[in-house]
Amino acid sequence: MRADARKNRDHLLAVAGTVITEQGTEASLRDIARRADMGLATLLRHFPTREALLDALLRASFDELTARAGDFEASSSPEDALVSWLRDCVAVAHEYRGVTELMAAAVEDPESALHASCVTMRAAGTGLLTRAQTAGTARTDIDGTDLFALIAALAWLADQPSLAPRADHLLEVVANAILTS
Amino acid sequence: MRADARKNRDHLLAVAGTVITEQGTEASLRDIARRADMGLATLLRHFPTREALLDALLRASFDELTARAGDFEASSSPEDALVSWLRDCVAVAHEYRGVTELMAAAVEDPESALHASCVTMRAAGTGLLTRAQTAGTARTDIDGTDLFALIAALAWLADQPSLAPRADHLLEVVANAILTS
Repeated sequence: MRADARKNRDHLLAVAGTVITEQGTEASLRDIARRADMGLATLLRHFPTREALLDALLRASFDELTARAGDFEASSSPEDALVSWLRDCVAVAHEYRGVTELMAAAVEDPESALHASCVTMRAAGTGLLTRAQTAGTARTDIDGTDLFALIAALAWLADQPSLAPRADHLLEVVANAILTS
Repeated sequence: MRADARKNRDHLLAVAGTVITEQGTEASLRDIARRADMGLATLLRHFPTREALLDALLRASFDELTARAGDFEASSSPEDALVSWLRDCVAVAHEYRGVTELMAAAVEDPESALHASCVTMRAAGTGLLTRAQTAGTARTDIDGTDLFALIAALAWLADQPSLAPRADHLLEVVANAILTS
């Protein structure tokens, strides 16, 4: 990709992140292009479908979460690493309102453009969970898919205006359920 | 209400329950009327809006859940009563696919036709939770609203095809988080 095309793509992604945070995953693509000072045709050249745009956006977030899992693993106790990462995942999933259902579907659907990102993220979580289980500080009857499901449910909860004020507290309750010490 | 009008209303409700279980809360009202062998006008005379129909349907379910809370309270230990009721609530909320978001919104919105049913159900849960807390078998840093939020999140989870296989297991994990013994 030429440098200016790459720059346009990065700019579109940054604007899309802002608009989708404000309006959710059903945000108007035309609106995103307008706020990036580009035509819809330019946006569609970079991202032919809404899913391609979301995938690029989420891939960046999920890569960041995967990297953070490695950082936490290197710097924190198994149980702190797991809970810190859980908290970050819920925050990212909640940031893009409406993405939770997409994530939940994509992780089991190899045809989805989001599949690879979701699977990578789930694997990072499985690594942190296994480490805590080996250390004897996390219950052994849950696996990476359960962890992924709990992240999705907590992010959904944070998305509901009436329940959102309880979301942080309930994340602690659930974290407490995962840990055994 | 005359006896035949009452009979029509009960029949419409029963059919609506079946159709909404199959198709979710956005089911066609025309389809419900047709399957009840009535005209749409008759349906709309009994239930002028979709929300009025859902309210009647859910009120029946929530009244049943409130009654069951009383039964569990009379027959079971505080912790068994709480968990059995939690399980029944998630099953009912999951039965009508799409109702979870409605419930979450209605409980904080006095203008909603579903408000009274949701508040009654939350109060029944608060009673069971308080009983277990008093007995020292439930954590004391959650309240009836937290319980309601957890029920909604677990029902949402059961509604996601890819996560549903984990829903029962995660309900036990969450129940375990609520109980202290």
